[in-house]
Amino acid sequence: MEVNTQLTQPITGFPEWLPAERLLEVRMIDTIREVYERYGFTPIETPAVEKNESLQSKGEINKQIYSLYRPNVPAEVDKETGLSLHFDLTVPLARYVAQHYGKLVFPFRRYQIQKVWRGERAQKGRFREFYQCDIDIIGEGSLDLLADAEMPLIIYEVFKALDIGQFVIRISNRKILQGLLHHWKVNGEQAEETLRAIDRLPKLKGGWQELQAWLTDELGLEGGICTALHQLLMEEETHASPLEKLRRMNVPDEIFQTGIAELQTVLESAESLNLPQGILETDLSITRGLDYYTGTVYETFLVGYEKVLGSICSGGRYDNLASHFIDRTLPGVGISIGLSRLFSTLLERGLLTPAAHTPAQVMVTIPDRRYLQESFQVAGSLREAGFKVELFAQDSKHDRQLKAAVRKGIPFAVIPWPDRMEKEQSVEVRNLLDGHREVVPLERLAGFLHSTMGQGCSRPIHQK
Amino acid sequence: MEVNTQLTQPITGFPEWLPAERLLEVRMIDTIREVYERYGFTPIETPAVEKNESLQSKGEINKQIYSLYRPNVPAEVDKETGLSLHFDLTVPLARYVAQHYGKLVFPFRRYQIQKVWRGERAQKGRFREFYQCDIDIIGEGSLDLLADAEMPLIIYEVFKALDIGQFVIRISNRKILQGLLHHWKVNGEQAEETLRAIDRLPKLKGGWQELQAWLTDELGLEGGICTALHQLLMEEETHASPLEKLRRMNVPDEIFQTGIAELQTVLESAESLNLPQGILETDLSITRGLDYYTGTVYETFLVGYEKVLGSICSGGRYDNLASHFIDRTLPGVGISIGLSRLFSTLLERGLLTPAAHTPAQVMVTIPDRRYLQESFQVAGSLREAGFKVELFAQDSKHDRQLKAAVRKGIPFAVIPWPDRMEKEQSVEVRNLLDGHREVVPLERLAGFLHSTMGQGCSRPIHQK
Repeated sequence: MEVNTQLTQPITGFPEWLPAERLLEVRMIDTIREVYERYGFTPIETPAVEKNESLQSKGEINKQIYSLYRPNVPAEVDKETGLSLHFDLTVPLARYVAQHYGKLVFPFRRYQIQKVWRGERAQKGRFREFYQCDIDIIGEGSLDLLADAEMPLIIYEVFKALDIGQFVIRISNRKILQGLLHHWKVNGEQAEETLRAIDRLPKLKGGWQELQAWLTDELGLEGGICTALHQLLMEEETHASPLEKLRRMNVPDEIFQTGIAELQTVLESAESLNLPQGILETDLSITRGLDYYTGTVYETFLVGYEKVLGSICSGGRYDNLASHFIDRTLPGVGISIGLSRLFSTLLERGLLTPAAHTPAQVMVTIPDRRYLQESFQVAGSLREAGFKVELFAQDSKHDRQLKAAVRKGIPFAVIPWPDRMEKEQSVEVRNLLDGHREVVPLERLAGFLHSTMGQGCSRPIHQK
Repeated sequence: MEVNTQLTQPITGFPEWLPAERLLEVRMIDTIREVYERYGFTPIETPAVEKNESLQSKGEINKQIYSLYRPNVPAEVDKETGLSLHFDLTVPLARYVAQHYGKLVFPFRRYQIQKVWRGERAQKGRFREFYQCDIDIIGEGSLDLLADAEMPLIIYEVFKALDIGQFVIRISNRKILQGLLHHWKVNGEQAEETLRAIDRLPKLKGGWQELQAWLTDELGLEGGICTALHQLLMEEETHASPLEKLRRMNVPDEIFQTGIAELQTVLESAESLNLPQGILETDLSITRGLDYYTGTVYETFLVGYEKVLGSICSGGRYDNLASHFIDRTLPGVGISIGLSRLFSTLLERGLLTPAAHTPAQVMVTIPDRRYLQESFQVAGSLREAGFKVELFAQDSKHDRQLKAAVRKGIPFAVIPWPDRMEKEQSVEVRNLLDGHREVVPLERLAGFLHSTMGQGCSRPIHQK
């Protein structure tokens, strides 16, 4: 067999899944959607492209973007289109809210599950095309901290529903470290760089030592500040909660105190929302690298896979979503799941195992071409009863039909043998997973399959 | 209010919907998916991009493609990426099947619902970014005509489920006209051009006259051939089916006879599949412009909107899907729904009317901030019971909470007044569509809402 290997070589960084894997990915996306909608978020979708000026609105773009041009249009007419693929869903959301401002009802709760593109250097685990699954709640003028408290609950519901293992949500408030640094006279870019460095801490091979060296040698922080940071971020106390520890510091800085108060409110509200114990943990080292966040920040970790995966769901509170596009104060809070990376790692590590190649639950075979009508009828009635049914559309030996069903992972074959159909209005049902065969009257067929599948005899789409 | 109008101006050809509209589009896509899966098609997704050489595999690309470049990468390193956005889902399917050939089970039944991009000149109703919803059945070596017969059934089920009006599926077989032309010694490019011209007939302002002038003057067809074509395509006979008409012509050409036989088989099988009368009509003028198709061809029209919309679902049979990528014969048959165009026209014409701005069915209000816990509890229990619930996360007057619910189109508000909650464990349920109020005990709340919504009191997402 000859294949054009040049053309069928995968494109680095652009993941593509086989049917069984894609089926799992679709089910994950559906699960996330379902939870988002259950919490009253409404779907929006923005074009794959934005104007270049819009994408530059976050300041310098350090992500490599993909811009568009039309090779078939003469260069002098249309050198560039002025459009680029979006690299996240936040800039598009800001532009969307500004553009449709008068037609939206605030607080605006939207979810958005789309691919984003980044022309980054290809490396293991880095995708150039990947799914983000975002929700945000945008207020008009102000937004209650209740919204910040709702987010951990939604994260909890999503990962409970995805059923991929134990997880923990880490929460902090960016104002706390900001206020502390301010109190210590570390401000502006130096403060931002410090927060970004702390954000990188889990990825540093040299751990705290490496961070400290960088903070003192490169950023010029005083040794005393590093000691205080170490005490705050690295030393766990058994008898004091992080909030108590912070209060004991007795730092009069206003930003710092606001941060503590906000975090406390959010934690208390989250408690009223009945999050199970141990799911939400305060972790002052969570800073999210971006200046963009101004208050509550979250990261989520799959227990046992903290290093491999990093945060699987992150987000936070921001003061003003769309200042570049509109002169309205639009504060918001949101989270984002980087689905493609999560999904591919779960597959790689065997935490998700693809099973069936098709959503079909039943293959109706054609044992005899002269009795086509019978097979059509059976397939039709099963579809009406809500089953996903493949009818074997290939004129080949009956054995080969059954083999194809097995290879696709379809759990049941229904065989309308002509004599049985004629004499007793019944079919053979074959459980393709355990080989069990049974003759079932047509009128009881749907009920029989429902109850057999209900007993867990159908192959699950996701095998653990 | 000031808005950056330069940045918030819509990008021509890239549709973007308000939440209420997007909600409808999502529901349409879900409906299509649901039918495709019920017929045993499995989802695949390919990257947004393909290699330029792959996209050129269909021969000359007459669609304007969008190619990618990275403005942040030095030109000498990476002038172009060699990648372009796909302009349909057929080329990606061909590449996918070749690339993963050994891992697929044939007949391979896949569905694919993705956006495609065409850098065409913007004009009314032409989108540069739009959804295609495709299914194909790919055989290995051969593919039974039963697959051709299944397609109209699936088209029927999709448009019945979408519930957007009366429709008709027109079917033909490309071999019939091809064979006739061959018999008349019209071959090669002249034959293809004739078929393409016939395909354009519904769009010609001058109708048959314009077509005939073009065929004789430009293509050099004999007048006799035009007369015969007119008789075949334009003159309906009350007492003869199109197939009878064709047989009466007594043309010995082999391709012609194969076309008739194939069409007859497909029509007979489709009849066994119990398609309702009047849904599937033979129409010999259906040729689909593309050489790509080699047998059965379909188009689907919304009755009363034939001119405005053109075909809303088209497709056909092809001899070999992926010859450019692999030396295996992979015949297939497929259909495609151009969803974005259909959807936007349905909106424009008022055949679809957006209603709610959110999937939320219930707004749980917060009548008193001191009793937050009560609101959380009620919202939580309703979500557990399967309702989509928005909790009003804004510290504002209670009246404004209700107004926001009304503006979003949420059909019910549940108000946990503190005294009622305390004294009698009950809440107020307000039907926001008709103003009806009722006090309902907590333990009966989910049941009450279920039965009330079941009675059609909830606002439908799609208003007809």
